[in-house]
Amino acid sequence: MNAPTQHAQRSAYYEAIARQRLTPLWESLHNLVPKQPCPKAQPAIWKYAQVRDLVMQAGAVISAEEAVRRVLVLENPGLPGKSSMTPSLYAGLQLILPGEIAPSHRHTQSALRFIVEGQGAWTAVDGERTTMHPGDFIITPSWTWHDHGNRSIEEGGEPVVWLDGLDIPLVASLDAGFAENYPQATQPVSRHEGDSFARFGHNMAPVRHRVTDPTSPIFSYPYERSREALDALYRNGELDAWDGVKLRYVNPATGGWPMPTMATFMQFLPAGFAGRSYQSTDATVYCVVEGRGTVHIGESEFAFDAHDVFVAPSWQPVRLFASQDSVLFSYSDRPVLAALNLLREQRN
Amino acid sequence: MNAPTQHAQRSAYYEAIARQRLTPLWESLHNLVPKQPCPKAQPAIWKYAQVRDLVMQAGAVISAEEAVRRVLVLENPGLPGKSSMTPSLYAGLQLILPGEIAPSHRHTQSALRFIVEGQGAWTAVDGERTTMHPGDFIITPSWTWHDHGNRSIEEGGEPVVWLDGLDIPLVASLDAGFAENYPQATQPVSRHEGDSFARFGHNMAPVRHRVTDPTSPIFSYPYERSREALDALYRNGELDAWDGVKLRYVNPATGGWPMPTMATFMQFLPAGFAGRSYQSTDATVYCVVEGRGTVHIGESEFAFDAHDVFVAPSWQPVRLFASQDSVLFSYSDRPVLAALNLLREQRN
Amino acid sequence: MNAPTQHAQRSAYYEAIARQRLTPLWESLHNLVPKQPCPKAQPAIWKYAQVRDLVMQAGAVISAEEAVRRVLVLENPGLPGKSSMTPSLYAGLQLILPGEIAPSHRHTQSALRFIVEGQGAWTAVDGERTTMHPGDFIITPSWTWHDHGNRSIEEGGEPVVWLDGLDIPLVASLDAGFAENYPQATQPVSRHEGDSFARFGHNMAPVRHRVTDPTSPIFSYPYERSREALDALYRNGELDAWDGVKLRYVNPATGGWPMPTMATFMQFLPAGFAGRSYQSTDATVYCVVEGRGTVHIGESEFAFDAHDVFVAPSWQPVRLFASQDSVLFSYSDRPVLAALNLLREQRN
Amino acid sequence: MNAPTQHAQRSAYYEAIARQRLTPLWESLHNLVPKQPCPKAQPAIWKYAQVRDLVMQAGAVISAEEAVRRVLVLENPGLPGKSSMTPSLYAGLQLILPGEIAPSHRHTQSALRFIVEGQGAWTAVDGERTTMHPGDFIITPSWTWHDHGNRSIEEGGEPVVWLDGLDIPLVASLDAGFAENYPQATQPVSRHEGDSFARFGHNMAPVRHRVTDPTSPIFSYPYERSREALDALYRNGELDAWDGVKLRYVNPATGGWPMPTMATFMQFLPAGFAGRSYQSTDATVYCVVEGRGTVHIGESEFAFDAHDVFVAPSWQPVRLFASQDSVLFSYSDRPVLAALNLLREQRN
Repeated sequence: MNAPTQHAQRSAYYEAIARQRLTPLWESLHNLVPKQPCPKAQPAIWKYAQVRDLVMQAGAVISAEEAVRRVLVLENPGLPGKSSMTPSLYAGLQLILPGEIAPSHRHTQSALRFIVEGQGAWTAVDGERTTMHPGDFIITPSWTWHDHGNRSIEEGGEPVVWLDGLDIPLVASLDAGFAENYPQATQPVSRHEGDSFARFGHNMAPVRHRVTDPTSPIFSYPYERSREALDALYRNGELDAWDGVKLRYVNPATGGWPMPTMATFMQFLPAGFAGRSYQSTDATVYCVVEGRGTVHIGESEFAFDAHDVFVAPSWQPVRLFASQDSVLFSYSDRPVLAALNLLREQRN
Repeated sequence: MNAPTQHAQRSAYYEAIARQRLTPLWESLHNLVPKQPCPKAQPAIWKYAQVRDLVMQAGAVISAEEAVRRVLVLENPGLPGKSSMTPSLYAGLQLILPGEIAPSHRHTQSALRFIVEGQGAWTAVDGERTTMHPGDFIITPSWTWHDHGNRSIEEGGEPVVWLDGLDIPLVASLDAGFAENYPQATQPVSRHEGDSFARFGHNMAPVRHRVTDPTSPIFSYPYERSREALDALYRNGELDAWDGVKLRYVNPATGGWPMPTMATFMQFLPAGFAGRSYQSTDATVYCVVEGRGTVHIGESEFAFDAHDVFVAPSWQPVRLFASQDSVLFSYSDRPVLAALNLLREQRN
Repeated sequence: MNAPTQHAQRSAYYEAIARQRLTPLWESLHNLVPKQPCPKAQPAIWKYAQVRDLVMQAGAVISAEEAVRRVLVLENPGLPGKSSMTPSLYAGLQLILPGEIAPSHRHTQSALRFIVEGQGAWTAVDGERTTMHPGDFIITPSWTWHDHGNRSIEEGGEPVVWLDGLDIPLVASLDAGFAENYPQATQPVSRHEGDSFARFGHNMAPVRHRVTDPTSPIFSYPYERSREALDALYRNGELDAWDGVKLRYVNPATGGWPMPTMATFMQFLPAGFAGRSYQSTDATVYCVVEGRGTVHIGESEFAFDAHDVFVAPSWQPVRLFASQDSVLFSYSDRPVLAALNLLREQRN
Repeated sequence: MNAPTQHAQRSAYYEAIARQRLTPLWESLHNLVPKQPCPKAQPAIWKYAQVRDLVMQAGAVISAEEAVRRVLVLENPGLPGKSSMTPSLYAGLQLILPGEIAPSHRHTQSALRFIVEGQGAWTAVDGERTTMHPGDFIITPSWTWHDHGNRSIEEGGEPVVWLDGLDIPLVASLDAGFAENYPQATQPVSRHEGDSFARFGHNMAPVRHRVTDPTSPIFSYPYERSREALDALYRNGELDAWDGVKLRYVNPATGGWPMPTMATFMQFLPAGFAGRSYQSTDATVYCVVEGRGTVHIGESEFAFDAHDVFVAPSWQPVRLFASQDSVLFSYSDRPVLAALNLLREQRN
């Protein structure tokens, strides 16, 4: 058959099958089954120096109560209109002013809070309030009632900003989102602050506790301890050529991730660190806790300072350089890839 | 502040933050965190009587070798242009003619084959060929070399059609797709047919085998046995008001799913069965093996006959009715939802 | 201090501490913490040709009902008075005559039955009866009601002999034995024969089944299938220099052992097989199904024929030789050692 | 048959089968399969006031180096000559004087150290030394090199006494003991003190760590933290009617037990606590850290003071009473019973 005839025949055939909601795989196979990941998400950075004023102005634009959550969403430029940082992950900067309440609700999306600046705010989960300090990592797991609040100015409350990390795009792509508002603005406090940490945070556990879900029973991982661990290891001589000193947060009841959809990490890079390149199929959002340096992500290069947020999409080579002692918090969809046997890593 | 002023102020603010790739969560929160799943995928059915001729015509339109995989993709009308049945799952009807080869490749996407009609074809996985018979469920797991072929007409080969089920959209949404072609059209045969089944299929296992991945070590689940199991249970009086007699396929090395991203099921509905309604966050693709009946999915109602394919999106209530003794094969993304603690089910 | 003085001083001290129920570790350390296992159990064999008549005579000595279980216990000569084959395991030959009942009871000890000879007997577990055929492996798990019976002579019943394997010494050493008699001689039959196998035996499982204990949900592993698996592998060229062709029985709901305290195996040795030596910390009881050969265990050497039973204590090197095609069933305490991280193996 | 005839017949038969190393199960069934546990181990207490002088005198009787381990074994009066506290567990009081070394070795037996009194000693495990303080719980897992030492008097060393808990009887009963001496008295120190705790003790873990065995990667569980956890829970109002406030020690890499054969617990009983009775198939050894009270175990009643050691055999009802605020450390073979599905508990 000559080519024009074949083309005409195929076009007619494609029209015929389209009426039955059928398409020819052979025309799209290469896109559907690519040789390697081709993420639409782009490497990007948000400089805190440029966005901080806008975050604070949000306090005048809308109240925490009206907003329910007063958050500026960091939207990946490669995923316009999707309120997404990566195909799985969401990131936003939330502001809560002294005396405000972000009302109680719950949803099947898992959420993490990484405190950027300010003192006096709290997060309540399952009846227990946790005070938030810069550098703390706090979780509000799937389907747990949670609300946030801040002390009044009289009590020493300051504007508090944190990074919200959620699996909103993932849950949307699985059509698995449910949400519910609590009848009151705040849920009742039924347990003392620190209660869950006393039960599970000290390498011990209640004698009759049974693990029934994959979520961490502690809600707060204080920066004080994370930093102490990193410092001790660095003093002991630990320094990986790719990672510096890097720990992952752990669900102490299982040794697994704190939540089933998002991994979280904290790493220390000493001044002068020039990391080697690695790549992984989990996409990662970083938040700089302290320090200054540079990151290469694929073809992009970004200078980073404290409180900046940047993103490395799937399979983009990442290299980290520190000009000052630096601490980076990060989160990714690694547990999802690991659970589905789709995690692939390469150290270059 | 009066409303027009507030509106103007907010618009100006939204423009300012957009320049920093920031968006106001409070304008989109309800869409991002819905009260319950609102799938774009629609209930739909493909009547085999209407598509069979088109499938067979594909044999004249393109060769198996040129196509690599000669498949008509069943595209959900709610997901146009996405080659998807649900946000996670792909379905297609593949045709292989006598004497043809579908060349060997591998990819991180997991694939299942459910044989619809025809005798004589085989699938090779990891050096072992399996003959395909109607009703057999066959897997080609993530990153395993696999190819398909068919006996020549002289050897008794017939056109063989099967349903392909893959996790293509899921892997795409995670930017985790890798693929590779085998240097030759077919991989060498290094093991006798039935070898993996002899090792693992009889409730026994090689004495020194260690489980290192979540994938089933058997590649073929013959219809003969599945049907025998369903029949025995029905004779014994088993009949669930929602499911009839329903079994899931099992990885005999773990008791888990045959592959980490897709669950597969087979169920028997006796003539006259009128199932009660249930809904679940896993989306399910059904393929009718035998029989005739009706299915209600959400607001839709479809009559089904042997070899028809239909789809129930997430959280749509499903009711099954059988006018004849019927057997349904189905697959869903249940392992994904279960692994991520996002599986929710309701029997109404 | 001179030696006699020291000796006297120590003796006085030892008497003083003995009054407080204290003993000096340093006098017994080498025995308590040996360089390697020094089992008291000895290699031994029971020739079926020598014991069969005695087993049959037991039928005249006592009724099954009076005996509760009419069993001759195989007692390891190194463990006199302990009714034990190894420190963990018990073995006995049970006889049930046509028309007899071994009354229903349950206990925390796990039991296996390996059928040696005869047709017509059944075992009932949890309301389901299983017919016993030579070579079948049948379990009566911990705390399940179980009874045995045999067809009458009129119905074709024959004297049936099987090997009982239990973890009696292990459970005794843990002070964890509980037992209870059923109010009637036999429990009611509530499920058809083959029901549990239909649910779980075909690499499928009921869709809503949840695994809540480590015990296999199938009670019978028919010889027909085990033999088919071994034969297929041998035809395919499988032959391990130590094991021949060796499979372990599997709990299809988990991939683990059928019961949490005893592993079970079946292996095929072709005529002329001369196995290499291996040793392991699990002690193993063998029962010859078919064939003839020789086994070396430590310093001992035994010729074996069909139905003979022999035992290899912990860490004794074992070598198997077959003069005819042979099939060996075996059971050991491997799951115990594996669960406690005490399993050590060596292939010499 | 009349009774004398039957008796004679049976006796003759028993003699005949004895020659084949066979015994009649029906004569011993009730003992082998008891209605409920009948432990030979007895409830017992060792009053520290009565044994402390003897422990200290051991320092003059033998050197740590000659003894290898200078330990007085607490031998259960119901298990004479067995150096055992329970059928599974061993307990001993070890003394190390200033300047002494207990030389390095390893064995498959798992060991725990619970520090009773004295400052200045250390335990080394896998190249890392841990300073021992009263109330600390320290592990030397199976097959890890370990040695102990004490500072010189000049450096402030004091006689240090700790309770050793091992699974010696269990490992003996499984014929699974291996042991080896290190070529030098002490193993080289290759890691800073606190290194493993920095890696795993703070609800974090090294990012690339893979769990490959069931043993805790932290060697020391300091009393300071355990006590802080108990105190916080008691202040929060936690008080169980059976247990008071009771936590178990956890392997932070898995959430499981620190070692696969022994569970460890610490509990707080406020002054005036009168616990309800419970019983369990795990046998438990208690060591009083602080306080004073009474314990009922089966038919026995013991007054306890700080540093006393007492034992509750399997299934003996236990009731705890505190006349002062009391803290009890305890260990048991619970992981063994749990792994083998033999754990049974009852709260009366």
